[in-house]
Amino acid sequence: MTNSTAIQDRYPDRHANCYGCGPKNPHGLHLKSFVEGDEVVCRYTPPPEYTGGVPDAVYGGMIACLFDCHSAAAACAAVLSDDEIPPRFVTASLKVDYLKPTPMGVELKLFAKAVLVKERKVIVESRLVAAGEIRATAQVVMVRLAAQ
Amino acid sequence: MTNSTAIQDRYPDRHANCYGCGPKNPHGLHLKSFVEGDEVVCRYTPPPEYTGGVPDAVYGGMIACLFDCHSAAAACAAVLSDDEIPPRFVTASLKVDYLKPTPMGVELKLFAKAVLVKERKVIVESRLVAAGEIRATAQVVMVRLAAQ
Repeated sequence: MTNSTAIQDRYPDRHANCYGCGPKNPHGLHLKSFVEGDEVVCRYTPPPEYTGGVPDAVYGGMIACLFDCHSAAAACAAVLSDDEIPPRFVTASLKVDYLKPTPMGVELKLFAKAVLVKERKVIVESRLVAAGEIRATAQVVMVRLAAQ
Repeated sequence: MTNSTAIQDRYPDRHANCYGCGPKNPHGLHLKSFVEGDEVVCRYTPPPEYTGGVPDAVYGGMIACLFDCHSAAAACAAVLSDDEIPPRFVTASLKVDYLKPTPMGVELKLFAKAVLVKERKVIVESRLVAAGEIRATAQVVMVRLAAQ
């Protein structure tokens, strides 16, 4: 399935204020995740101030932010039907493995897939690719908020 | 040991540009970590735009950023002697468990301790306390950069 609307752009207003991916947060990063085939994909180029402890590498905290928001979207996509208001997932645990430095100044691509889907819990595995190499991977446990 | 100088303020210039905790990054968060007794402590109140998927809770990505930078500082403190240029640690893996929502508008306190110290690797365990309750915990594996 491919969908040209970002998952985050389907969130209801009450769940659209996330700093990382909320369309209604005027100061946020506005991350967007799209279903592409059997994965969920996010493309993002961090602004130049997001350097890490090593000046030419992306800040590890920014990478954690990307995995956090993108995993919430992938969990949502895993359970969402076309005519439903998207359920909101929140993070129960986030594990990031930083395999090698992520270079600044290039587009980062995150690929995510739900590997376990239960009624209230979805586990998402992801990888971050930059300049043709996997730089980091993540496993994230997302929990579905009760309907409001 | 208690030290009134933040660990990050002792980083050499080439390692002082981190978005989260680099004193030389004009756009960054400027997180500060201090040795207090046998722990390393960071206090921070996120600006109001750092909301998460739930509007009255702190963004999970921001919490990951806090643990990331604070753990690097705690690893540094675990090996640092008073007259040495602080070694720089980078993150090999970051695991955050989000136990309950972290409220907006209050000071967050992070407490960190090195639980394993080897020549090139330090494992740091931390907790985030807000409004008197532990909201999240982290285990972070930090790797020491080779001397430059």
